[in-house]
Amino acid sequence: EVTLSGDARMGVTNNIASGDTAFTSRARLKFTMSGETDGGLSFGASFRAHEAFNANRDALTSAGSVFISGAFGKLTMGNVAGAAEAAVGDLSGVGFTGLGDYSDTMFLTGDGAEPEPIVQYAYTAGDLAVYASATDGVTLKNYALGVSYTMSGYNFGLGYESTDAADGPGVDGTHLVASVGGTFGAVAAKAVYGKADIGAGTTTQYGLSATYTANALAVTGFYKVADAATKTTAMGLGAAYDLGGGASVKGGLVNVDVDGIEDTVYDLGVSFDF
Amino acid sequence: EVTLSGDARMGVTNNIASGDTAFTSRARLKFTMSGETDGGLSFGASFRAHEAFNANRDALTSAGSVFISGAFGKLTMGNVAGAAEAAVGDLSGVGFTGLGDYSDTMFLTGDGAEPEPIVQYAYTAGDLAVYASATDGVTLKNYALGVSYTMSGYNFGLGYESTDAADGPGVDGTHLVASVGGTFGAVAAKAVYGKADIGAGTTTQYGLSATYTANALAVTGFYKVADAATKTTAMGLGAAYDLGGGASVKGGLVNVDVDGIEDTVYDLGVSFDF
Amino acid sequence: EVTLSGDARMGVTNNIASGDTAFTSRARLKFTMSGETDGGLSFGASFRAHEAFNANRDALTSAGSVFISGAFGKLTMGNVAGAAEAAVGDLSGVGFTGLGDYSDTMFLTGDGAEPEPIVQYAYTAGDLAVYASATDGVTLKNYALGVSYTMSGYNFGLGYESTDAADGPGVDGTHLVASVGGTFGAVAAKAVYGKADIGAGTTTQYGLSATYTANALAVTGFYKVADAATKTTAMGLGAAYDLGGGASVKGGLVNVDVDGIEDTVYDLGVSFDF
Repeated sequence: EVTLSGDARMGVTNNIASGDTAFTSRARLKFTMSGETDGGLSFGASFRAHEAFNANRDALTSAGSVFISGAFGKLTMGNVAGAAEAAVGDLSGVGFTGLGDYSDTMFLTGDGAEPEPIVQYAYTAGDLAVYASATDGVTLKNYALGVSYTMSGYNFGLGYESTDAADGPGVDGTHLVASVGGTFGAVAAKAVYGKADIGAGTTTQYGLSATYTANALAVTGFYKVADAATKTTAMGLGAAYDLGGGASVKGGLVNVDVDGIEDTVYDLGVSFDF
Repeated sequence: EVTLSGDARMGVTNNIASGDTAFTSRARLKFTMSGETDGGLSFGASFRAHEAFNANRDALTSAGSVFISGAFGKLTMGNVAGAAEAAVGDLSGVGFTGLGDYSDTMFLTGDGAEPEPIVQYAYTAGDLAVYASATDGVTLKNYALGVSYTMSGYNFGLGYESTDAADGPGVDGTHLVASVGGTFGAVAAKAVYGKADIGAGTTTQYGLSATYTANALAVTGFYKVADAATKTTAMGLGAAYDLGGGASVKGGLVNVDVDGIEDTVYDLGVSFDF
Repeated sequence: EVTLSGDARMGVTNNIASGDTAFTSRARLKFTMSGETDGGLSFGASFRAHEAFNANRDALTSAGSVFISGAFGKLTMGNVAGAAEAAVGDLSGVGFTGLGDYSDTMFLTGDGAEPEPIVQYAYTAGDLAVYASATDGVTLKNYALGVSYTMSGYNFGLGYESTDAADGPGVDGTHLVASVGGTFGAVAAKAVYGKADIGAGTTTQYGLSATYTANALAVTGFYKVADAATKTTAMGLGAAYDLGGGASVKGGLVNVDVDGIEDTVYDLGVSFDF
């Protein structure tokens, strides 16, 4: 079976090279394919329309993904999140365009970091989920491990990942990253901390996000630091108002400081899910 | 909700570089997404499968479009017709491939003229429709206004548009364009006149098209002049026979004269809507 | 009407440049459009999502195809098999990725050999099917003829094809090719023989494939020689186990010998149809 879903957005942002306020719009469509074997295994694949060319390119590029799942867990191949990302995830972002996605956690593997298919294995047992992911080791020896746990309304994530440019001259690295999140009345909050050794340097990242929800309105703020050779500090504030039927009005404001050089960007628009 | 529609065609034409008679075929598919907010606003987006890559590129390119509409009118962003084109439109063309689309009216803005999203606003009240469109003014300060009116079986269109390459070295221009159309028994006819100042030059365009319909058969003729630094005169004659179910047999013949150098092109084929 | 179908696969292969064992996955989606005229003619078009750009390019490129059919037969334009291929076809291959498709029969025309649309005509009368195909003759004067016949459980195919680079400096050639196939209990077998004169040289190709089926298991072997300026001998052995619901486990092993230099490749994975 093939099912279709889509998303679109339109509005204004000043987050372009010139810093002027510009129109921004896009429309996307996703193909989701699913089936079940006679023995009860589920399988499927998905990719977006604009990824169709790369989703067809076998071992060469990563776009879209293919999975099979059963009592043994779920095995996914293609452009899939690494195990550390699957367990820890990102902070909540702001704006209808993401405004540079500074609230995203930096990971060394998965989600397109490798220009080839990787494998992710996931197993869930009640409140516990474990993840493992790896490249095939030909040009990159990347792997990651992750675990997430939910207890008394709190959720915890922990991930470790390693990248190794096989026999090539690329940069090697390892990364330990953790998150904790919870809901406190109308506020959902999450904190992330990670420390990575990449080549000869160290990157430390940490941050916090919180979303307050009141009926159709959700207000989100985040603070995120990525401290490497350069130090990037980003703060964001945004709001979303749910119009129902898949439509929202969203806006955001992000201040980014890179070693003391600041930039403030914003956006405002409507976002649709179909 | 996502719905699918498509079109395809196959046949022969001599409208290729060599002037020989060649096979020509194509197939296209369109994604149309739609929804409604709790408050009764309609929204949606659409693009064709071959536009998927550019439809996903936000402020960078224009392909596909996104809209929201309600009692206030309809606001569309993306690769959308400019207001002048929305009000005035094109003459009727001939052939199953369009044969160079010489019956199209030249416009300065909209419909892909800008390599970025533009906004079009449309409001309809009974027989009257008004349109306004604009770029965001960053690299191009383009805008257009249009009005169309239907009265006693006649319809009138009037548009004004302006293009200005902001602070860049591009060519600036303005364009006033009008159309009148009507149906006289089995004949539907339309005339277009436009005058544009582009850079240091003036372009005058005018033309007439008429379609005679008898049961499943429609015969169309057009005459169109575009008089600028070079003068292009095009005459076309074509016929379409409706086979039902979305299929038609179509053929056309177009003579194009560019400052006295003539070329005659034709096509014949079948055209399908799905 | 537009219908959607898809296929996907994931697994491992060593059939990459380095010869290492690598992950390989892909996902594809096909659009199939169909309709019927009031007079009972069927028509349609199809292309895959990753072919959308080229399927829209008229006379320039070949991707996807468009057809109309009725009592007169079926006429298809676009990227379609040539008449010789339609009548003779390929041997059965092995592996979930095809492993280089060495079991495929080499043809001079059709199936993408020409960078432009071609036409294929097919007419079926009981056990007999005849095929004719041609380019438009502008840059390439290609044509092919084919006939296939089924009798007492055996099927025979015969094809002739000719390629001629019109007035250009390309390589001309002709090809006579035949096949015979049949089912013997649980075994389906097929043999192909073809002889082509291409430029100043001669290519002889011949081969045999057989598939043994027992419940959900199918085991396939093939042997194929292509003897031209270099001699390529390929042998393959593979198995497929049908899991039901469109899913199969498939693996294959292929040995390729090119003038005495050997390479052995394999793959193993799951294959899905949606």
